[in-house]
Amino acid sequence: MLPSRQLVRRLAARPPRRPSRAFASSSLPQLNSVTEADLAHFASILPPSAILSTLRPSSTPASELEPFNNDWMNKYHGRSTTVLRPRSVQEVSAIVKHCNKRRIGVVPQGGNTGLVGGSVPVKDELVISLGNMSKIRSFDDVSGVLVADAGCILQSLSDFLIPHDHIVPLDLGSKGSCQIGGNVSTNAGGLRLLRYGSLHGSVLGLEVVLPDGIILDLLNNLRKDNTGYDLKQLFIGAEGTLGIVTGISILTAAAPHASNNVMLALPSFANVLPLYKEVKRQLSEILSAFEFIDRRAYDLAVKHGQGRALDDADVKGAECFVLVETSGSNREHDEQKLNKLLEDLMDAEPSLINTGVMATSPAQFSSLWAIREGLTEAMAKEGKPYKYDISVPLDKFQEVVDTTREHLRKKGLLHEGAVEHVVGYGHVGDGNLHLNVVAAAYTPEIEAALEPFVYELVGKYKGSISAEHGIGVMKTHALQYSKNAVSIEWMKRIKHLFDPNGIMNPGKVLEL
Amino acid sequence: MLPSRQLVRRLAARPPRRPSRAFASSSLPQLNSVTEADLAHFASILPPSAILSTLRPSSTPASELEPFNNDWMNKYHGRSTTVLRPRSVQEVSAIVKHCNKRRIGVVPQGGNTGLVGGSVPVKDELVISLGNMSKIRSFDDVSGVLVADAGCILQSLSDFLIPHDHIVPLDLGSKGSCQIGGNVSTNAGGLRLLRYGSLHGSVLGLEVVLPDGIILDLLNNLRKDNTGYDLKQLFIGAEGTLGIVTGISILTAAAPHASNNVMLALPSFANVLPLYKEVKRQLSEILSAFEFIDRRAYDLAVKHGQGRALDDADVKGAECFVLVETSGSNREHDEQKLNKLLEDLMDAEPSLINTGVMATSPAQFSSLWAIREGLTEAMAKEGKPYKYDISVPLDKFQEVVDTTREHLRKKGLLHEGAVEHVVGYGHVGDGNLHLNVVAAAYTPEIEAALEPFVYELVGKYKGSISAEHGIGVMKTHALQYSKNAVSIEWMKRIKHLFDPNGIMNPGKVLEL
Repeated sequence: MLPSRQLVRRLAARPPRRPSRAFASSSLPQLNSVTEADLAHFASILPPSAILSTLRPSSTPASELEPFNNDWMNKYHGRSTTVLRPRSVQEVSAIVKHCNKRRIGVVPQGGNTGLVGGSVPVKDELVISLGNMSKIRSFDDVSGVLVADAGCILQSLSDFLIPHDHIVPLDLGSKGSCQIGGNVSTNAGGLRLLRYGSLHGSVLGLEVVLPDGIILDLLNNLRKDNTGYDLKQLFIGAEGTLGIVTGISILTAAAPHASNNVMLALPSFANVLPLYKEVKRQLSEILSAFEFIDRRAYDLAVKHGQGRALDDADVKGAECFVLVETSGSNREHDEQKLNKLLEDLMDAEPSLINTGVMATSPAQFSSLWAIREGLTEAMAKEGKPYKYDISVPLDKFQEVVDTTREHLRKKGLLHEGAVEHVVGYGHVGDGNLHLNVVAAAYTPEIEAALEPFVYELVGKYKGSISAEHGIGVMKTHALQYSKNAVSIEWMKRIKHLFDPNGIMNPGKVLEL
Repeated sequence: MLPSRQLVRRLAARPPRRPSRAFASSSLPQLNSVTEADLAHFASILPPSAILSTLRPSSTPASELEPFNNDWMNKYHGRSTTVLRPRSVQEVSAIVKHCNKRRIGVVPQGGNTGLVGGSVPVKDELVISLGNMSKIRSFDDVSGVLVADAGCILQSLSDFLIPHDHIVPLDLGSKGSCQIGGNVSTNAGGLRLLRYGSLHGSVLGLEVVLPDGIILDLLNNLRKDNTGYDLKQLFIGAEGTLGIVTGISILTAAAPHASNNVMLALPSFANVLPLYKEVKRQLSEILSAFEFIDRRAYDLAVKHGQGRALDDADVKGAECFVLVETSGSNREHDEQKLNKLLEDLMDAEPSLINTGVMATSPAQFSSLWAIREGLTEAMAKEGKPYKYDISVPLDKFQEVVDTTREHLRKKGLLHEGAVEHVVGYGHVGDGNLHLNVVAAAYTPEIEAALEPFVYELVGKYKGSISAEHGIGVMKTHALQYSKNAVSIEWMKRIKHLFDPNGIMNPGKVLEL
């Protein structure tokens, strides 16, 4: 009897089953997969409703994890077994503390609307989804300071501010699903950057759970605070690799009471920069957008039904277009300024513009924007677009587009059935060019012709290979085209200082 | 003969003389003093004109080093033997490399206009003065991006921009002597912050010599660049403790074409915040300053001849005053907006203001500002001011002033011959209050009554003990009232990562 009882005891005293070697290989090197024992621990922190896992005893159907394991473009695919949805910073802290001890990779996930694969697991890392942290903590309608949980959806913050006559100093196409924590972690730019500046200026404070689970409370509401290093800045744009942003304090802006826009047709790209100078000079504080669209991009937008700002006669002879928007507090004043600008432009000899159309109704205002905002869709309808979101000096916008087209022509790839369009558009005011190469199909030849060619071109002009989309997992290999060796070395040291075990969003921003 | 020759050889082969123990004690713990041998090394890097040293062979008179060893208030005193004035980033790099190897403390110095002793040596650290690096490297009048050496004086940058119709997004009383590198290193706020935001938003790139002498080139000109950690942010406001800023890329703003201001008299502090809300709502994009002056401060300014904005009858019954400034691109529009605001304010029942005066000429514009800008001088003329530059929630401005006054009264210190005035003024728009306690003389009793009382009060409101002046050597002991333990611990880790030998501006920001 005795030997048998001892065996039973020994079995019972065994530690929880380690994953088998085969299973372990589904995790990243140096990191462990989530086990049933880990899940039992998480169950001591979170209610069952906050745990999605294919592991026992949760046994969630794998299909329910798909939205967390795949990005919205269906381009990046993770194989996480477990998604946790904490409701408080304390819960996030407890989860991360455990993961750090157990060397489990962690992927913080907001609205999962990114374009570079930054918010899905590379392998089977644990996903911490912030969506359950969606409370507005406070709003001060005198200072305009809003404090909110990281999981608040951008649109819901905008809606909340409407009766308070304020706006979030950030607007994005994905506002209906992106979360403010993700916006901050990716330093999202968007449509209001020209007017309200970057999040490095408007974010006043952050609450962050560090990779060891410690809560770093930098959540102040002060516009001015010169008491040492501005640590919060490190987390703005770190794409969740240094910690998980759980709370944000942000300076919102007084809502403008009037918005106007105008679409201008230019005979030559050479006129864009003198025009930008004149527009800045005359519109100054009410200028809120200055968007560039080259002729080929414009034609594709019209072809695919994204609107038509100008008559055919007006479009004739135009090499490119510019959309100018104003936002101000007095409609009459703004219209006077805009009218004066247009008169001056038309009267000048030679004129910088061929012609232009000014919106005279909210519907027309929207339809002018529709062309600009419909470009992405037009490219996708036309073919398979290779998209490059880059910053280059303003006077190099057209050159980058033309040089890329010539390069593809020389490679024998610019013809029907291969690359059919090379177009450019973007935010002149921010120096941000969207270079789109539209092909009949995605092919290795075209990709090889484009990369690293485009990145080298950007590097040559000391530009940025990612103006606003970030690095994610997509561009880690190309980081050196925008950052020198010393900078990358210091990024690695900062990463190691905060996350010595490498658990936090592994494989993003910096290569493993 | 032989022994004697050997002795001669041994003497000749000896390393350069080490400082005696007595001399070494003039340096900070763990750090070494500059020796004649070090000076010989610096002479191999720099021309004689760039070296000021009381050591041989330079033998500069000590009086020539005084401006570098003492701050302009003559409050902080260093005893450096040596000041180096490099002309290039390479020279700065070579100097710092040597200092790091030799464990010599280094104090980067710009215009030496700080208020917290951040730019003078604590003991005998080497001073690196940036004044010889004063070239404008480039200016792009389309994007508005200015790239300049750190030693450029703020006023000279402003003057340079005038013909280009741009302004530096920063204005300070010390603009005639402060340097842009020092402005960035101290995250200077100043008079344009309400309109143009902080340097964390407007600085686009930095060139920094790290404590090991390596040059970290983060000097890009891009408004948008999301390629990894924004390392430059760490050096903005680090007060030279993480490295020496040698070059700056900054986004300048289009110059406004019209400026107006108005001084308003308010019956009660309770009206300040509703007034600020209404002013923000109506003036929106043209509001460029909203300055608060309490009644006692105003009376002192008038008493000491700093101007008189309002008639005696208008001042009667006013508990405080507000100076509103607008800056815009169209004078007529701005005046219309301001007039409408004033009419609305006067017509309201009950009115938020008693009365107001609007400047109708450049001279009157200047004289309204003279009251606000003359407050510092008025305090100094009235007595010995204890000055606290703090951030607190806007609705606590008056409470902080009143609570401090009551506290001093209870301590029996509020009477003629002791504390005679407790006044408040500051930038409401930025949440930045200047609390001034004017005494007949600086005494230990008053200081003991004020500190840590004021810091604790600030801490209670989650405010900042230094809104814009920084920590320097003056407030290192008080850091914990604005920063929690986790934040301070992380500041120390960052400091150690960049400067493991602790040579860079030792004793500043963090206690030794």
